[in-house]
Order: sequence, then structure tokens, then C-alpha cells
Amino acid sequence: MKDKLTIVKVGGKVVEDADSLSKLLHDFSKIQGYKVLVHGGGRSATKLATQLGIETQMVNGRRVTDADMLRVVTMVYGGLVNKNVVAQLQSIGLNAIGLTGADMDVIRSVKRPFKNVDYGFVGDVKSVNGKILSELIRQGIIPVMAPLTHDGHGNMLNTNADTIAAEVAKALAEYFDVTLTYCFEKKGVLRDEHDDDSVIPVITPDNYDKLKTEGVISGGMLPKLENAFSAIRVGVGSVVITSFQDICGSHATIIRK
Amino acid sequence: MKDKLTIVKVGGKVVEDADSLSKLLHDFSKIQGYKVLVHGGGRSATKLATQLGIETQMVNGRRVTDADMLRVVTMVYGGLVNKNVVAQLQSIGLNAIGLTGADMDVIRSVKRPFKNVDYGFVGDVKSVNGKILSELIRQGIIPVMAPLTHDGHGNMLNTNADTIAAEVAKALAEYFDVTLTYCFEKKGVLRDEHDDDSVIPVITPDNYDKLKTEGVISGGMLPKLENAFSAIRVGVGSVVITSFQDICGSHATIIRK
Repeated sequence: MKDKLTIVKVGGKVVEDADSLSKLLHDFSKIQGYKVLVHGGGRSATKLATQLGIETQMVNGRRVTDADMLRVVTMVYGGLVNKNVVAQLQSIGLNAIGLTGADMDVIRSVKRPFKNVDYGFVGDVKSVNGKILSELIRQGIIPVMAPLTHDGHGNMLNTNADTIAAEVAKALAEYFDVTLTYCFEKKGVLRDEHDDDSVIPVITPDNYDKLKTEGVISGGMLPKLENAFSAIRVGVGSVVITSFQDICGSHATIIRK
Repeated sequence: MKDKLTIVKVGGKVVEDADSLSKLLHDFSKIQGYKVLVHGGGRSATKLATQLGIETQMVNGRRVTDADMLRVVTMVYGGLVNKNVVAQLQSIGLNAIGLTGADMDVIRSVKRPFKNVDYGFVGDVKSVNGKILSELIRQGIIPVMAPLTHDGHGNMLNTNADTIAAEVAKALAEYFDVTLTYCFEKKGVLRDEHDDDSVIPVITPDNYDKLKTEGVISGGMLPKLENAFSAIRVGVGSVVITSFQDICGSHATIIRK
């Protein structure tokens, strides 16, 4: 039987507020077994860009990343947010290490090809080095992964944090019994978006199509669930969608086979 | 006999210029045996601070680091410069990993106590985890170290890169036959500061006092050499002071027992 590993993905909103970050990391420390944290940082990047007079342009929810914006996200994701999280984890006794895809060549990507939109220095994940990551994790080290990858030709690339979490989960499924947890504002996938307590406890391929047809799952939740099912198809044990305020709690949507 | 390890420290001027960085990393790649790179980044930090309207204040050549400046150096040293160097090393086939002192708890420091000058969030190195660093190095990974440490209580601290290089060299001397190379603008320690070819080939405790008395070694070179001798006293094989344009070349000052 494989050892248990939990990958927690948290958005920028959580990691950029001192109080919510502190609570989240405390909850994260209580998760049993091996652990990985993947973080965002978009709000801080937008804030720094604004201070530097660099305009933030989003298309389909994704950041257009020119050379100046690449410098901003490399500073904010790889430096400010990542090192802050690592230092805080160290302070509560977790031996964390901050990683981008360039570090130990853990995630290589290709610059997204131009199709209607030129996203600039944005990377689509090509390969994750699960072996080197798993060796690090087995030494008791906790990877803290920034949403940055590299192309192998000397360039950093901006990469979506949800995607990084899913791709890392897939690569580590060969070595561990992986649970991938996406944290966001709600307690899970809601049956009624106006009722925070209408969490759908389990989504499987059997009820997923019905939920889509009924329009219960739509908009931004669709790519999240497509990511989730793609991870499960290649061996990730389960994907949990829950609130960052309660990552170990009882309210969550579990996506499984 | 211990395996050979070379620690190269390069200043901000080198790593912040694309051409000089590219040449340096190419030369670095040719060094035989295990390797560590320690970098600065002060010019970029000052530039970003200026763009953000944050005043840079230096006392005795050291940066006063208030909370805003700490954010700047964490972004620039830990993010921008570090990840750029790592991505470039990956592109020439060296499996680099970017580290601050917080990552894997490799360097803990204490906030410098107030004595005449309040340097703010500046750390004096307390301990280096040579064991975990040496294990990483033996796996064929090349640590690229930013001049940042942490205090174990959740705070990053700005730390002099020369000092980090010396302290890492001392800690790794238990595991490797360490050569510490400081790269700067000149070809070595000069007998005549106006003659770039007057490099003193070897400095030992025997001729050091004489060179000081004669005034040949003075100013900013004094702390560098004090650092060098302190490293040698605890087992570092030799310290090399040379030009960043010729790190594998024949012109250098070697400091040894």
C-alpha cells in the first residue's frame, strides 16, 4: 500500500492575508502523512504591477504576461509569497522548501502557442519530475510550490496554480496515495449557489453529467472539475474541493471514481 | 579523502547583467566537482526600491532594511535574481535549486541587535545545516543561494552574501574539501590598487600582518580577508579572490594556511 500524500492548493487571497495564512498553515500542519502546498499570489502581483505602472490584463481569467509582468510574478510568486509561506511553516516546525518549476527542474513547460490570444510568458506544463519530488518528500521535506515553471531554455514562465497542483498530483500518484485538495471561498461545490450549506458531498462520473445538464455545475467550476477528473483518471485517489477556512473539516465535495 | 566542493560567490553587478551572467554561468559549469553558487543583487533591489518610492539607506556599506525594504529584497533576491540564475543554469544542463536560509531551514539567523545603528531586518548567521545541504549536493543538485535567511519565528532577514558564502563554506568543510571563491571586479588582491596586474598570488597568516602594516590591505578588503581566514581556521581548504570575468583563470589571490 502506498503512503498517503495530501496536496493542498490555496489561492492568493488566503496566502496574502496574515491572519488567514496563519490559520491555514496551522490547519495544514495537522494533516497526517506527507504534504505539498501549492499557492497563488495574483492579488499581490496585481498590486505590485500597479505600483510600478504596469497594466494588468486578464483574458478568460488568465493573466497576460509580458516581459515586465513576468518580472513582477517572478518576484511576487517566487520571492515574496513563497518565502513568506516557507518561513511561516518553518516557525511551526514544518521543514518546508520553496520551489518553482525551475528548481531541480521539477516542472518544465512550453510557452503557450498563440491562438487568438497572446498570453505572453505563460507556460503549459509539459513534464513534472515526480521522482525527484518524491525523494525530497520522503526525506520529510514539504515542497511549497509557486505558480512558476521554466522552459529549459533559461526562461521562467507564469503557470496557473490549479494546473500545477493537478499536474504535480498526477506525477506523484505513481509514488503515493494522493489526495488533491483545492481550497476556495465556499465549503465545496454548491447545489444552490445562494445557499452556502448546499454542498454536494460526492461527485463521481455517474452524477457529474447529470449535474452539468441540470446547470448545477457551470462557469468557473467546470475547468476545476475537468482538472479533478483528469487527475483521478491517472491514479490520483480523490480530489477534495473545500473552504480554506476548514481544510480538515467535514464540509467538502469529494470527487472520486 | 574528501570530495572537492567549490563555492562561488558573485556580486549583484555580475548577475544583473545578462551578458556577464551568461559568461559567468558558463565558466561556473566548467568547474569540476561539487558546486554551490551564492549571489547578491543589491543594485536590482535599490532600483526596485526607487521605483516604489522606498529610500535606500546604506550604513558602513550595509543596507538598512525596514519592513518595506525587506519585502523588496525578498522579491529581488529570493525571486527575480535567484530564479533567473536557476533557470539559466538549468538551460546549460546544471540541476540547480534556489535556496534562501528558510528553505529546508538551511540558515538560521538572529536579527542584528541594535548597537548605534538599527539595521532593521538584517540577520547575523546563527547556524547552517551542513548535513541537509551536503545530502542535496551529493544528489548532484547545485544550490543557488540568495542572501536571505530566517529567524525561525516566521521572519525573513536580509543577510550579507559574503557572510553567507563564508558560513556555508565552514559548515560544508566537515563533508567536503572546500574551496571558497569570491568574485569581484579585480583579478585578485592588488599590491598596487592602480595596477590591475599587481595581484598578490598567495596570502597566508605569515605575510598577512605585514601586508596590513604596509597598508597594502585596507578598507573593504579587510573584512573579506578576515572572513577568509576565519573560514580557513575551521577547515575550509582555501579561499580564492578573483575576477568574475575569469573564475577558472590563472589570475587570483589564494588565501591559505
